[in-house]
Amino acid sequence: MVGLVIVSHSAKIAEGIREFALELTKPDQRILAAGGLGDGALGTDATRISAAIEAADSGDGVVVLVDLGSGVLSAETALEFLDPQQAARTRIADAPLVEGAIAAAVEASVGAPLAEVVQAAEDARELHKR
Amino acid sequence: MVGLVIVSHSAKIAEGIREFALELTKPDQRILAAGGLGDGALGTDATRISAAIEAADSGDGVVVLVDLGSGVLSAETALEFLDPQQAARTRIADAPLVEGAIAAAVEASVGAPLAEVVQAAEDARELHKR
Repeated sequence: MVGLVIVSHSAKIAEGIREFALELTKPDQRILAAGGLGDGALGTDATRISAAIEAADSGDGVVVLVDLGSGVLSAETALEFLDPQQAARTRIADAPLVEGAIAAAVEASVGAPLAEVVQAAEDARELHKR
Repeated sequence: MVGLVIVSHSAKIAEGIREFALELTKPDQRILAAGGLGDGALGTDATRISAAIEAADSGDGVVVLVDLGSGVLSAETALEFLDPQQAARTRIADAPLVEGAIAAAVEASVGAPLAEVVQAAEDARELHKR
């Protein structure tokens, strides 16, 4: 089952999304929050993100959702810290954080492969709410 | 100054976004969180949303950001609870929650009028993160 990592500048946002997404998925779905800096300040931390990717990966790959552009840089740095095989099955989705994470979680939870989970997240960009 | 209301099914997500956005704005920027149900459960509550809109409105109007489609229904119901003049200067943005809220907060904080704050939120839909 594809795992998810939720990257936000805010630990509270990342953890809130993790909890929300877990309500919609099977109990064994791996969703890790990597929000904020270690000291509770706002920011993103490549070391925390790479640890979350390792914990989220069951072998089927990981989709990383990010809130803002500077978080993408941290996520890209995080990939460099990983074993190359693990990095190769990790994707950073170009998707809105909350909406993409929920869509990806539902897709991952039914056993969809990596490419389809990424697509579900990125399709959330096109969702019109009204 | 245009006020913001952050509506999420999760109280933690809404509060996290409020805190994050306030870090990027002037101290007098009004940003209210209306997340979850009163008892801490996941969901959206029109009564809480309408109270948040009233508290966010300084007379210049309010932009409401919402996470998922069912939250839009609650926000629309909330508008019906308001004084018609206040409802008329409240807009529900068709925007990604985190990204739209951050963009709208920055725009509102520099004194932009209602239509421009809505536009800033909705332009966040087009942001490619990479």
